[in-house]
Amino acid sequence: MFLSDFGYLDPYVGIVKGAIKSSCNVEIIDLSHNIDSFKLKSAQFILKHSYKYFPEGSIFLVVVDPEVGSFARPIVVKRKNYTFVGRDNGILTFDNDFKVFSVDEGFKDVSATFHARDVFAKIVCKIINKKINLTKIESFEKFNIEEVVFSKDEQKGEVLWIDKFGNIITNIKTNSNNYELVINGFTIEKKAQYYAEFKESFFAIEGSFGFLEIAKYQDSAAKILNVKIGNNVIVRSKNESNN
Amino acid sequence: MFLSDFGYLDPYVGIVKGAIKSSCNVEIIDLSHNIDSFKLKSAQFILKHSYKYFPEGSIFLVVVDPEVGSFARPIVVKRKNYTFVGRDNGILTFDNDFKVFSVDEGFKDVSATFHARDVFAKIVCKIINKKINLTKIESFEKFNIEEVVFSKDEQKGEVLWIDKFGNIITNIKTNSNNYELVINGFTIEKKAQYYAEFKESFFAIEGSFGFLEIAKYQDSAAKILNVKIGNNVIVRSKNESNN
Amino acid sequence: MFLSDFGYLDPYVGIVKGAIKSSCNVEIIDLSHNIDSFKLKSAQFILKHSYKYFPEGSIFLVVVDPEVGSFARPIVVKRKNYTFVGRDNGILTFDNDFKVFSVDEGFKDVSATFHARDVFAKIVCKIINKKINLTKIESFEKFNIEEVVFSKDEQKGEVLWIDKFGNIITNIKTNSNNYELVINGFTIEKKAQYYAEFKESFFAIEGSFGFLEIAKYQDSAAKILNVKIGNNVIVRSKNESNN
Repeated sequence: MFLSDFGYLDPYVGIVKGAIKSSCNVEIIDLSHNIDSFKLKSAQFILKHSYKYFPEGSIFLVVVDPEVGSFARPIVVKRKNYTFVGRDNGILTFDNDFKVFSVDEGFKDVSATFHARDVFAKIVCKIINKKINLTKIESFEKFNIEEVVFSKDEQKGEVLWIDKFGNIITNIKTNSNNYELVINGFTIEKKAQYYAEFKESFFAIEGSFGFLEIAKYQDSAAKILNVKIGNNVIVRSKNESNN
Repeated sequence: MFLSDFGYLDPYVGIVKGAIKSSCNVEIIDLSHNIDSFKLKSAQFILKHSYKYFPEGSIFLVVVDPEVGSFARPIVVKRKNYTFVGRDNGILTFDNDFKVFSVDEGFKDVSATFHARDVFAKIVCKIINKKINLTKIESFEKFNIEEVVFSKDEQKGEVLWIDKFGNIITNIKTNSNNYELVINGFTIEKKAQYYAEFKESFFAIEGSFGFLEIAKYQDSAAKILNVKIGNNVIVRSKNESNN
Repeated sequence: MFLSDFGYLDPYVGIVKGAIKSSCNVEIIDLSHNIDSFKLKSAQFILKHSYKYFPEGSIFLVVVDPEVGSFARPIVVKRKNYTFVGRDNGILTFDNDFKVFSVDEGFKDVSATFHARDVFAKIVCKIINKKINLTKIESFEKFNIEEVVFSKDEQKGEVLWIDKFGNIITNIKTNSNNYELVINGFTIEKKAQYYAEFKESFFAIEGSFGFLEIAKYQDSAAKILNVKIGNNVIVRSKNESNN
């Protein structure tokens, strides 16, 4: 289970797999390697909403580096039934039910620039071979993509992901159907149960990740509304008397 | 063996693999995930001309949704030595030597939008674990990408695929070498045995899928001729007296 | 271990994997399939700097065809602990410690255009099944991406690769830190130890492949400097008295 911002152009993904296979026998599945470079929130979004679909016992290797500054130290995060290996930059610490460990190991021949090959591949195999020295730590970076600002009638969130089809995935959840959604100056009023429900207009829909998405039938909502990852989104309750 | 229009941007492919691995032990190979969204004919083309190269017993999971309308029901199609899982939208029913089955199973926690994860992954594992209730059906969607209109001296077909190199793959076969090919207003007269035969001009060639292709040496024929998937192609016999 | 210029659009990679799995039981890992079409040097670069990270005994299938002319014959190249299968076009013969073999086998049903499926997949399985007839040969194509022209104070090399992040990877190595680097009319003077060291200017850095790279913090050096694979690079020694 391997998530990175390496893309599919370079041999980096293949080399990391080779380095893992050279040290231990494990099956490697690609989760995604097209995370927008440096986008920590996108990486957490994907990880948080994917990992439970993988078999119990899976190890997730996550190599996405931060927007500002240089490399953070390697950590291991354990949740019930799952293990995560990555940097101490907040991607891995997305709920309140985990333990964080520092890695007390030396690594040989470490290049300054390709830690996934020289350090992280080896950490994964040390975990699999049960030969790793870990120390529980209490101080680490932490953020949560689902942090939304609530006021009386509004939720203020942001765009977490834009998929291949141009669907705009937000970090907002709602139980009501009585709202309008504002993004980039546009107001979306239609709410759909499935993508083909409205053929002409934009609509909001509860997507497969459990968040509100903005979509347009067989069209890229993101392109037409000129929306990017990180843009603000407001969900505004409507009083029935206003309708 | 997994074919979809999910692309490599999103984690969808990885999540479906995780969902399969969580339910059964099977090796998963990607056939392609860059099918142009909603292009049923492209999907059938790839499937039809790929599946026999895979080991006997392989199961093909095909998730490409239709150009018009919403989701079709899941079906299982069995050919000699191969099994196909997908929707009842005609992609899987491309020759006359198969049986079609409806899936008589309930699935829990089905999202409205991500059936590959919530339904199709489970169908694949139920087949592998030999725990699936299937009923043979006689009524289903059907189309065939190789349907070409013949008149006395002409075959009218269409463009099935444009590959990375810009080669234009049609749905037309011919045994003669005495023809000219018309596409998008251009007439192609040269016929090659291998791609490097003509360095300067466009040419037609019998490609590796057995169909006529239009190509240009180290150049994108599709770009220069402004050809898209679905464009019409005419192959016109020439009388030797005309030459 | 599979390297090609097939890209991820087409089903070609999947079909070759199917053809291999149909003939022998082996795990297949993608090294890269986005080699720029026809770029032999890029292919050699990736292969040369990746293969040692894979487990001993690995077989590398390399299908990238040449810039000029048509297909070259299949060869097998053996290095200590590793085997390479590809064409006799120089990609595989990058150091002085290998043996080259011709493949003395007939293959059935060979299409004129898809040898990876019809020939190379079968060679890989014949090697794995230890059922292949090889003859050592002494005459074969050979080139080396690390060939750099030295004069008294200068090394003249070229751009081998541009990665997803826009880092420009050259074929020049240096032990000194007392140089300036000239590319496309621009002079780079800063030298970094890690990518985040300089936030504002271009800089040179010894990358993870051991070569000098030109980079810019969170920006594409290649795009801004308008550099392409194959462009010339000069590394010019500076006398300390000149500084």
